[in-house]
Amino acid sequence: MEPTLQDIRDAAARIAPFTHRTPVLTCATLDGMTGAQLFFKCENLQKVGAFKMRGASNAIAQLEPRLAAHGVATHSSGNHGAALALAARLMGVKAHVVMPDNAAAIKKQAVAGYGADITWCKPTMASRDEHLAAVVQRTGATIVHPYNDERIIAGQGTAALELLDEIPGLDVLMTPVGGGGLISGCAIAAKSLQAKIRVFGVEPEGADDARRSVAAGALVPPMSPASIADGLLAPLGEKTFAIIRRYVDDITVVSETAIAHAMRTIWERMKIVVEPSSAVTLAAILEGKVDIRGRRCGIILSGGNVDLDRLPWLAE
Amino acid sequence: MEPTLQDIRDAAARIAPFTHRTPVLTCATLDGMTGAQLFFKCENLQKVGAFKMRGASNAIAQLEPRLAAHGVATHSSGNHGAALALAARLMGVKAHVVMPDNAAAIKKQAVAGYGADITWCKPTMASRDEHLAAVVQRTGATIVHPYNDERIIAGQGTAALELLDEIPGLDVLMTPVGGGGLISGCAIAAKSLQAKIRVFGVEPEGADDARRSVAAGALVPPMSPASIADGLLAPLGEKTFAIIRRYVDDITVVSETAIAHAMRTIWERMKIVVEPSSAVTLAAILEGKVDIRGRRCGIILSGGNVDLDRLPWLAE
Repeated sequence: MEPTLQDIRDAAARIAPFTHRTPVLTCATLDGMTGAQLFFKCENLQKVGAFKMRGASNAIAQLEPRLAAHGVATHSSGNHGAALALAARLMGVKAHVVMPDNAAAIKKQAVAGYGADITWCKPTMASRDEHLAAVVQRTGATIVHPYNDERIIAGQGTAALELLDEIPGLDVLMTPVGGGGLISGCAIAAKSLQAKIRVFGVEPEGADDARRSVAAGALVPPMSPASIADGLLAPLGEKTFAIIRRYVDDITVVSETAIAHAMRTIWERMKIVVEPSSAVTLAAILEGKVDIRGRRCGIILSGGNVDLDRLPWLAE
Repeated sequence: MEPTLQDIRDAAARIAPFTHRTPVLTCATLDGMTGAQLFFKCENLQKVGAFKMRGASNAIAQLEPRLAAHGVATHSSGNHGAALALAARLMGVKAHVVMPDNAAAIKKQAVAGYGADITWCKPTMASRDEHLAAVVQRTGATIVHPYNDERIIAGQGTAALELLDEIPGLDVLMTPVGGGGLISGCAIAAKSLQAKIRVFGVEPEGADDARRSVAAGALVPPMSPASIADGLLAPLGEKTFAIIRRYVDDITVVSETAIAHAMRTIWERMKIVVEPSSAVTLAAILEGKVDIRGRRCGIILSGGNVDLDRLPWLAE
């Protein structure tokens, strides 16, 4: 069952002890550059540095005790693994995370630092699935999918719930699109609260399965997705795709150059650290892919986990 | 006359239309690393990316109209020039900024972007003073000193006023020390509101005139100050020194290595961009120079203006 606004409200109450209510920042310079009023919901300042903490907390908090006793499990090279690890620890639940052995050192440290039990696998989907199945068989842990799960979708939607509660009268809401958990939950919240708000998703040109799926009217699996926005490479799931078709007004794509430029612009002008995935929305605005002139536009900045030794503008 | 708590409250009301009420962020990981509860007042997220916007706004807002008509002037290679330029523009006042021709490109762009009239000088104090005098003679502008001025001191104190209003029961307040405007205003606010709070200042080893002045009981001018914390090179003024002697409990110094490490730690863990000057307080805590274990400690992060092409950890 597709989550409702009430599910998202319930999630907000449930996750409040385990998450930050993140600030909404504005920037007069960016308003001047875009001719709009931008309101940035800073999920890079969320615990574990990403909105993923919302969904993970909401999923674990609803586990029946007899299941929670066996822990939770997932495979992840990114923010979902860290979020599941921390949310589990805060609730006294064991977390098992299957990680590819080539994952970024900073991600390995984060997941280990949050006390998860890590199983290393090869960097292929087959190896991930195989190792995860073995972990589940051994431990009885409950698998928590990173996005194709109603509890996760409802949890991510709390970001939009908070934003719309704090900033009234938004005309537009924009989020990045990876597997679709964030935009699904946020679109349900936004359209339920303000029927006339327009919801736009943005993805990298090199990982544009959401745009192609919407155009085709059926899930189109991505063909070797690639982008510096490494949080946006996952394919849509069936549940997130159904919600996107129903609630999202348009999906836009942006170039790698535009993502790197927008990311640097956010660092320089807003003084916050965002990862490339967070910058796709501003990239779309600065590239003129969406017209928000004169509008009040909410933007979800999804995360801030980035290797400070390897910044896109120092790539040479 | 030394500013009073009432002066700082008046300043807060006066500057509200021209400044952000900046967020206070916490970080569970840093609390764990330090054994304390840290509350970071994020002046890097202030307009122009620095607390300087507070003092500049407070000074210009109090100019008599017959003076304001001739504009304001200062010399600055840093954040005060940008703050004066923007605050002046927001109040419809002309700003004249004397800048050394070797100032960082990002600072030049900022001051120019805020619409100030820029006069280039050589990078010596004599050349700065000479050009500033010429500007004043030509225009009749009022000089606004970056820190040795009661209106500036009261304006900077509003950062502590907001922090203590939002976070009750702080045991300690820490700020960086450059010319002393920030710590002076914040110490008056903090000690007036909570007599038992301890106020600590931190400066770089290579620019430790505040520590030496306090020890000597008289202003000791700095000898060729040098540090990556380029916002902390200015010498104390007579007014700020008098307030520091009266209200500040201790001045601590930190090494360049500790500053760079603390700066990177803030970026990685808190996902915010701070300049080296902002990181001296956390550096002192992580180096064990101040003992705040078990305490609730407020920290003013002073600014976030940094050249993203030249980060200390990429210096090789």
